[in-house]
Amino acid sequence: MTDSNSQDRVIIFDTTLRDGEQSPGATMTHNEKLEIAELLDEMGVDVIEAGFPIASEGDFEAVAEISRRSKNSVICGLSRAKTGDIDRAWDAVKHAAQPRIHTFIGTSPQHRAIPNLNMDEMADVIHNTVTHARNLCDNIQWSPMDATRTEDDYLCRVVEIAIKAGATTINIPDTVGYTAPAESAKIIKMLLERVPGADDIIFATHCHNDLGMATANALSAVDAGARQIECTINGLGERAGNTALEEVVMAMRVRNDIMPYQTRIDTTKIMNLSRMVATVSGFAVQYNKAIVGKNAFAHESGIHQDGMLKSADTFEIMRPEDVGIAETNLVMGKHSGRAALRAKLKDLGHDLADNQLKDVFVRFKALADRKKEIFDDDLLALMRDTASDAEHDHIQLNSLRVVCGTSGPQTAEMALEIDGEDVSTTATGDGPVDATFNAIKELFPHGARLQLYQVHAVTEGTDAQATVSVRMEEDGKIAQGQSSDTDTVVASAKAYINALNKLMVRRMKTKPS
Amino acid sequence: MTDSNSQDRVIIFDTTLRDGEQSPGATMTHNEKLEIAELLDEMGVDVIEAGFPIASEGDFEAVAEISRRSKNSVICGLSRAKTGDIDRAWDAVKHAAQPRIHTFIGTSPQHRAIPNLNMDEMADVIHNTVTHARNLCDNIQWSPMDATRTEDDYLCRVVEIAIKAGATTINIPDTVGYTAPAESAKIIKMLLERVPGADDIIFATHCHNDLGMATANALSAVDAGARQIECTINGLGERAGNTALEEVVMAMRVRNDIMPYQTRIDTTKIMNLSRMVATVSGFAVQYNKAIVGKNAFAHESGIHQDGMLKSADTFEIMRPEDVGIAETNLVMGKHSGRAALRAKLKDLGHDLADNQLKDVFVRFKALADRKKEIFDDDLLALMRDTASDAEHDHIQLNSLRVVCGTSGPQTAEMALEIDGEDVSTTATGDGPVDATFNAIKELFPHGARLQLYQVHAVTEGTDAQATVSVRMEEDGKIAQGQSSDTDTVVASAKAYINALNKLMVRRMKTKPS
Repeated sequence: MTDSNSQDRVIIFDTTLRDGEQSPGATMTHNEKLEIAELLDEMGVDVIEAGFPIASEGDFEAVAEISRRSKNSVICGLSRAKTGDIDRAWDAVKHAAQPRIHTFIGTSPQHRAIPNLNMDEMADVIHNTVTHARNLCDNIQWSPMDATRTEDDYLCRVVEIAIKAGATTINIPDTVGYTAPAESAKIIKMLLERVPGADDIIFATHCHNDLGMATANALSAVDAGARQIECTINGLGERAGNTALEEVVMAMRVRNDIMPYQTRIDTTKIMNLSRMVATVSGFAVQYNKAIVGKNAFAHESGIHQDGMLKSADTFEIMRPEDVGIAETNLVMGKHSGRAALRAKLKDLGHDLADNQLKDVFVRFKALADRKKEIFDDDLLALMRDTASDAEHDHIQLNSLRVVCGTSGPQTAEMALEIDGEDVSTTATGDGPVDATFNAIKELFPHGARLQLYQVHAVTEGTDAQATVSVRMEEDGKIAQGQSSDTDTVVASAKAYINALNKLMVRRMKTKPS
Repeated sequence: MTDSNSQDRVIIFDTTLRDGEQSPGATMTHNEKLEIAELLDEMGVDVIEAGFPIASEGDFEAVAEISRRSKNSVICGLSRAKTGDIDRAWDAVKHAAQPRIHTFIGTSPQHRAIPNLNMDEMADVIHNTVTHARNLCDNIQWSPMDATRTEDDYLCRVVEIAIKAGATTINIPDTVGYTAPAESAKIIKMLLERVPGADDIIFATHCHNDLGMATANALSAVDAGARQIECTINGLGERAGNTALEEVVMAMRVRNDIMPYQTRIDTTKIMNLSRMVATVSGFAVQYNKAIVGKNAFAHESGIHQDGMLKSADTFEIMRPEDVGIAETNLVMGKHSGRAALRAKLKDLGHDLADNQLKDVFVRFKALADRKKEIFDDDLLALMRDTASDAEHDHIQLNSLRVVCGTSGPQTAEMALEIDGEDVSTTATGDGPVDATFNAIKELFPHGARLQLYQVHAVTEGTDAQATVSVRMEEDGKIAQGQSSDTDTVVASAKAYINALNKLMVRRMKTKPS
């Protein structure tokens, strides 16, 4: 890699809320999107791709609201190569201080075949749609989808058309996750050399991780002259996902000697965002994930230690605190006061108003009565539970008593409050969770299907809180529910009810258009 | 990338059982190691690094037994730069038809400081230890640990010494996961150009994924002339792990146009090994993991489908069946017979003897009574349960009855058989799992700590089986327990007992040496 562009700025374009949210099962609620957008803005992401406004009413509303609330980030909305799509994207992003429209069309032979356009016809579509977008907004990004499988000459031709029509950023997507670093660089170099006007715009790289090379491909494109990286938190995205924001940002920082590029990212906010996106999407991060995995900074301290002495100098290339992993894991307990809790939560990235703190403190005390030591992860679980949209809750759990074990049937006695009315029943099932869910179904009949059920202990020890995640589907709508409790069965009931409450909000939002 | 070495063979060196097993918490039992080694051998892995024989009696025994059972793979044992280590490695691998000794020393300034050797002293150690190893075995691999942070001139000097002393493979480890593709290639090119005798040996690349570039770095080294890739299944390994076998193998296959290299790997066996390693290590694979993640071949079929028509041709660069994902997920039920079960299990990679089938069939029928539809994943969970070392089981669950819910205390009535004797008790706890684990602790007092507890539903629906994984630690020894049941509390009890049984086996194995 060369150092001819010493310490150039690389624009970080986050598409967690668009390409990430497109992963099967990763659907996010309106409020979850707003919260993630706020954290991305605070972290220093230059451009937030907030959604695909034409796709649904929900996408449109989320992009519009994120635009209204944006502070420093450019807010971008995606649209196909259709004037109606572009208008809809503009209607959503125009509320932002710095709006951007992103429009795309598939230019590879495989993608040209779908709308059945020949090269000339597609060139006209590109000219017309980019011109239309530029007449609405002066910050226009254009993408030739599947660029890495598009013929070189045609790619140069359409990029030139888009630039002439007013595109200010040209994004080169490796849509199928097909390329390798040398090839990724070659395409950017070719475009910079051959396309008139290429020096006046920013080239972006958008990679997928199907062959495990998304990070290297993105950085290689930067080395060749691209100055925007499209990425997502945790590498969330369709199939094997997108380039992971945390990996490209930390790689440029750790190896600034060979990758002399700067970003605006406050890396100490990475871990908090990673946890948030994992929770909201239901896509847990694997232990051995680079940068944000549970083991990313862990060394085996067992049998080999005499042979391979571990010290930060010999084995660590970055420090946990660089990415926001708190060095101390100060234990709290039943005697910890409100001020200590507030200080601790602030360290963990949650700065609470007085009324919020009050609610969390009550829950903290209840937990401290059941669990001797309260760790950072326990508090984060508590915060996630508190953050759920309690004001929208149609269904609430009053009480639950379950009998289970090796000789069935397992039974669940349950009392719920549904829209203010108290109801109760006793149901049976295969196992405590099935019995509990059957009781909920009896009290609140619904057609939603349970797609995913998982439990993990928040901290160590048998008295740990368990966090239960469920994913439910109804008529193609997906809702993710989550809850933590020292009783896994109670956490299961609450998570299931949480998901049902979210599905009900969605039902009401879906009006015929 | 050049095509000057058209269709050269690249040696696949798997270190799942050594570097992978070194991940904190990924410790495997003796039988688990044998089973994984057998699958790696069958898959066509050229070299299996089976362990670090000097590290423990258990490591030694595993390497020796894997050596005895090896068929086509070279079996390799790791050793530090000490003659005692090397002798011990040889004693373990000498039983293999094709043994290899792998010896290493840290050559970077950071690592030279630990044994406090100057450059000349370390050069002598390398000469002496490699010579010693070569006098025992004619297949010798040598690694300058932390090669990517070693001074160029010194690296060339020590590699030359190792070659002259008889090393047949020189491995270049990026121990701290620090390098980038261009740099990874540059080191291999430099060694090939500058070191006398470099053409007569094989260069290997060993990358870590700390910055997310392990796969690209390994392939880039191959492009520069390395002909052995060191990797692990699922990228298991310390911190962010090693290069993932499945990624490099599939990348060379899918992009054979720009990476014209062949391996001996039967890629259709990838998925089965990935599942096995995830189960045994307790390191779940994230949904968006390349090649082996649950979503790696999944496309969002929802809102965007009209805009981005999905067809295999437009979005898929490899087929699920290429990596062993069965196309059909044929549902079985209570009316399925023994022959159908055998055929189905064979499809899933389990070819059973009659007595094994008998046991599995009984368990299959019991499950079919509780669960309407039985999917592939249910059968795989059943197989994992059956595979546990039942003959070693000191503790067995006779019965369990748990009462839990929102108003505590939760109670567990439990009966166990411990070494043939029936015992029972009633215990309380915070939640059903805590109460259950407390009952086990009362009946079988022990000092083991619960490090990890997780549950996931094997298939969809509220009547799904739940698989519970627990990890326990006692005096630095770690045991992983797992069990599946439609009742999560019963599965939790069995998983905990499974881990305790494994810990007891380890206790007995640890004799003073």
